Amino acid sequence: MSDPAPNDDATPPAEGLARLKSSLEARLKALVKSGPTTPRHLREAVRHALLAPSKRVRPMMVHLVAAGEDYLHLPALDAGCAVEMVHTASLILDDLPCMDDAKTRRQRPTTHIVFGEATAILAAIALLNRAFGVIAELDDLSPSIRTQLAEQLSGAVGWEGLVSGQELDLRGTEGVDPAKIERLNWLKTGVLFVAAAEMGATIRGLAPAQTRAVRSFATHLGQAFQTADDLLDVSATAAQAGKDVGQDLGKTTIVSLLGQDLARQRCREHLASADRALAETSLEPQPFRTLIGKFFGSLGTEST
Amino acid sequence: MSDPAPNDDATPPAEGLARLKSSLEARLKALVKSGPTTPRHLREAVRHALLAPSKRVRPMMVHLVAAGEDYLHLPALDAGCAVEMVHTASLILDDLPCMDDAKTRRQRPTTHIVFGEATAILAAIALLNRAFGVIAELDDLSPSIRTQLAEQLSGAVGWEGLVSGQELDLRGTEGVDPAKIERLNWLKTGVLFVAAAEMGATIRGLAPAQTRAVRSFATHLGQAFQTADDLLDVSATAAQAGKDVGQDLGKTTIVSLLGQDLARQRCREHLASADRALAETSLEPQPFRTLIGKFFGSLGTEST
Repeated sequence: MSDPAPNDDATPPAEGLARLKSSLEARLKALVKSGPTTPRHLREAVRHALLAPSKRVRPMMVHLVAAGEDYLHLPALDAGCAVEMVHTASLILDDLPCMDDAKTRRQRPTTHIVFGEATAILAAIALLNRAFGVIAELDDLSPSIRTQLAEQLSGAVGWEGLVSGQELDLRGTEGVDPAKIERLNWLKTGVLFVAAAEMGATIRGLAPAQTRAVRSFATHLGQAFQTADDLLDVSATAAQAGKDVGQDLGKTTIVSLLGQDLARQRCREHLASADRALAETSLEPQPFRTLIGKFFGSLGTEST
Repeated sequence: MSDPAPNDDATPPAEGLARLKSSLEARLKALVKSGPTTPRHLREAVRHALLAPSKRVRPMMVHLVAAGEDYLHLPALDAGCAVEMVHTASLILDDLPCMDDAKTRRQRPTTHIVFGEATAILAAIALLNRAFGVIAELDDLSPSIRTQLAEQLSGAVGWEGLVSGQELDLRGTEGVDPAKIERLNWLKTGVLFVAAAEMGATIRGLAPAQTRAVRSFATHLGQAFQTADDLLDVSATAAQAGKDVGQDLGKTTIVSLLGQDLARQRCREHLASADRALAETSLEPQPFRTLIGKFFGSLGTEST
């Protein structure tokens, strides 16, 4: 069985997903266009981090829930881009010398390596801030929907989300159990996955029961994704992963607690639970299954 | 003539302003309440920075424009708190070792000195993010107004605001002229002052002509404020200023370009222009004049 390779962009996804990804990347580029007086160094740092090769799985999730893969829906694309900006900001910060001190990310040197720490931090701030600006400017959606999207995104970054996850991760994870690790994974990865799906559900106007199923789907997928990422950290080379590996040495992860085989099994169980929840969402499942198949490889195929 | 002392909290402001300030501080505290699972270290870092002694001039500006000083208007208080969160986030970051490397701020050791760099950065992110969350949650205002406020705040932080100002400041200011320095001051200070005033105007529903006058008022006040801050940096002790002084040594500022006397004169001219614009806003001018008198001391008094 091959290892999950979430950063493997060599396999072309199905045509609809490929078109969606390239539309998302065009919008990302357009949404960070700066004025003539913006400092070039800062603008380049933002582009370096945001436009680097990436799976774009979070913005794809927003769009697939909001509008599927066939019809390109501009507000769904832009809301997805806002989520991708937040995710990219978190990667820039996680990689800083005072955090994980990583050298490579998305197949490029990390932002602080190329542009210096100060500019990297400012680029992260610019991205987080721009995400909320993009949401406020979604003129095709009612202000009430935009306000809900902003609340969902802010909730995913705040006390019950990314910043707390990163703080807990920095404080070390000695002596923790699988439940605590899953809580950390929830804060570091799951919350933003779920916010992406929920933002899609808000844009589509799904009923509460469907939205709950969407949340459950995204929760399991987020756990599977984080476990796959932990497996990648111990088994892939930096070139395969497109980022530093071995970063978790000395940290407790699902893999270090359970071993690779059990972690793989747990990943498959989460993917199976995700698929069951997907069936309850009333959304067309195929694009999601294609996306999952692409990113989890044979791990995903076996589980669905 | 005494030097401007923007950080002097010894002189009690007029009663209305004092009540407004204490209400703002109570709301700041309430708005960053965290859940039981939020990492304590992170929560304490946010409170350390946000609840430290401060003039609260930006949130006061929001409230005075939106609702005056007599009637405490909850959405105006909270929108002001959002601006104060953004301002505090920018102070935390400006003070980092890779930026200005400052040791004292708001009469306390800087956030990274007490909590470490990583947590300081996460605290800044938490505050910026919370600011947008607070605006999204302003249930007493229509979603359309909330969306406008989010756009105004995001505009002040982004390409044409704080992040660009800080990047330009880091890149050095050798060989620049007063016009370029005023552009830098505009990005670093003016834009957020003006956004605060404009957010107040949006909440109050001011007509376009009045909003233009409010913007002009805040623009001049912001320039006066930054010049006073530069004067403070060369003439006050750290204890008087409540933060590191001498930080601008080697940097070009209005003071280093024009000398202290001309800088003081320029500051007075901006205050006079601010007062003329204030008269055109149709807002009750007295609370603004009291606020300005308090912060600019005899410099302000002579100019009005």
